[in-house]
Amino acid sequence: MNWQYAAGQEALQLDCINRAQQLIAPYVVHTPVLQNAHLDELAGAQLFFKCENLQRTGAFKFRGACHALLQLPKEVREAGVYTVSSGNHGAALACAGQLLNIKVRVAVPSSGSAVKKANIARYAADIVEIEPGMAAREAIVAQWQQEDPEARFIPPYNHEHIIAGQGTAALELIKEQPHLNSLIAPVGGGGLLSGTIMVGHSQSMAIYAAEPELADDAWASLEQGQIQPAREPKTICDGLLTSLGDKTFPIIRDGVDKIIRVSEQQVIEAMQLIWQELKVIVEPSSATVLAAVLAQPALFQKQNIGLLLSGGNLDITRVPWNSSILELEL
Amino acid sequence: MNWQYAAGQEALQLDCINRAQQLIAPYVVHTPVLQNAHLDELAGAQLFFKCENLQRTGAFKFRGACHALLQLPKEVREAGVYTVSSGNHGAALACAGQLLNIKVRVAVPSSGSAVKKANIARYAADIVEIEPGMAAREAIVAQWQQEDPEARFIPPYNHEHIIAGQGTAALELIKEQPHLNSLIAPVGGGGLLSGTIMVGHSQSMAIYAAEPELADDAWASLEQGQIQPAREPKTICDGLLTSLGDKTFPIIRDGVDKIIRVSEQQVIEAMQLIWQELKVIVEPSSATVLAAVLAQPALFQKQNIGLLLSGGNLDITRVPWNSSILELEL
Repeated sequence: MNWQYAAGQEALQLDCINRAQQLIAPYVVHTPVLQNAHLDELAGAQLFFKCENLQRTGAFKFRGACHALLQLPKEVREAGVYTVSSGNHGAALACAGQLLNIKVRVAVPSSGSAVKKANIARYAADIVEIEPGMAAREAIVAQWQQEDPEARFIPPYNHEHIIAGQGTAALELIKEQPHLNSLIAPVGGGGLLSGTIMVGHSQSMAIYAAEPELADDAWASLEQGQIQPAREPKTICDGLLTSLGDKTFPIIRDGVDKIIRVSEQQVIEAMQLIWQELKVIVEPSSATVLAAVLAQPALFQKQNIGLLLSGGNLDITRVPWNSSILELEL
Repeated sequence: MNWQYAAGQEALQLDCINRAQQLIAPYVVHTPVLQNAHLDELAGAQLFFKCENLQRTGAFKFRGACHALLQLPKEVREAGVYTVSSGNHGAALACAGQLLNIKVRVAVPSSGSAVKKANIARYAADIVEIEPGMAAREAIVAQWQQEDPEARFIPPYNHEHIIAGQGTAALELIKEQPHLNSLIAPVGGGGLLSGTIMVGHSQSMAIYAAEPELADDAWASLEQGQIQPAREPKTICDGLLTSLGDKTFPIIRDGVDKIIRVSEQQVIEAMQLIWQELKVIVEPSSATVLAAVLAQPALFQKQNIGLLLSGGNLDITRVPWNSSILELEL
């Protein structure tokens, strides 16, 4: 697949995501779309929650990782792949590798959440714990590159195949609910948001993103007109700590209608609402989308909104509505 | 519908449930069936979770209540209906009444859970708080009967239309997963279990029930050959406190392969597994089915098992894996 983002080529882009969908269909969960009358009432709109927390490995990341592996040529599949991830991408790649019989190595920063690390360890991946920070990350990638030049680094978001894979979540959603006016996804590195933009624009839908105020580098990047780094963000949204990449930035710059920033308190309240009312477990990063819709009632009033719930990987015994636990997480 | 349970008339019974399914289809959520590789591994079996916690009002009870109202003649619909419920049946009836424009009165014992009471209050029902216990319950029913002889009492489980409605959950499940070997449902009053038996027997599936050790009156009823009352059970499974009725007892006596009793600790562990791994919120009553499967590995080994997750209504800020909270709940 020779894929290049270019504004105005919506049909071509949708085609890429349709092909990704066909490739990954035997491996992914066709996740349910849930609705809830009480949440609709709160929002003054019709909300359609695409539950990627119920995806294999507990997050949408499996879509992109699986697609990236399926696109690899045979010789790379035999050599294996590697990545650096403390979170959902690592588990997604490990699981996809196990299913496709491809050797996976994951370098895990020691700072990551225990549940997410355990989730990576479940699949037959080789795991190496590294120090947090860019230096250790670059060192291990360089080491693996040297040890095995045939093996391939699979990045968490800044890659065409990853973006096309993540886009399949929105594709499934709009096929099931074709009357949506807008889509909203969380933004961290921008893989899910970029794929969502490519799908939504082909249908002339408005596209919104939700980002924690405490990690608002994507918002700042759009303000500044160039990628702004994430500066050690202190948000509980541990899936949204990364900055945009050179593949995701232009798609988001040209394609997002608005990045809505939400406070930690708004995230916690939205997360509690999703657990209590929708009856599904989401991690804080996922709750940003409902927080954003509730924070901007004028923007979404009476619309049909598709919300991408990105994942559900967290320790359910340590939840952020006990304030002492919240302190611990930060 | 002239419905009468009789052993050996599986086709007739399935037909009742098929008709119930057609009637309620415009109102119910076709709930998803979830699978999880980690839970399959723990059980040594393939588990298919029918998520009635994602049903309207957060429990399977909506199916039976909606079906009972749809079966009412016009004059009764105009007069309205009433019930006594501290839990999911009250909310289900209130919601169904609101959708069908039927006046609903619910007497709520003051001992019920706050979340379940709030769930009833959401719909436009008339709510009367009463003392706990049979005396207050019978008094309010007698009062309403006298006040309005045209209005109808809709019981929570001991009624043919309720049983047929609850059976639609298992019907949807086996239509989606026709290769199941067995079904397992929690047993309280026996409405869901009776409907599940009627569906499962038509397909020659084994049928199991899960019951808390601390509320094992259904198990005792089968041992004794007659209905045993529930004696102020102290289980956290607040949806399973009632005893069987004269409609549900014979169906269960003739149709269940085994009632598996589970401890409070087994329920809590299973509930935690469902939250953590399956990423959905279930109330303790629902977790009994996974607890039972994990407690009896020899019985379920290598089978394809359909588990009915009955509901998800509880206060998510007060969960039973904090032992101090557990004390409070009992």
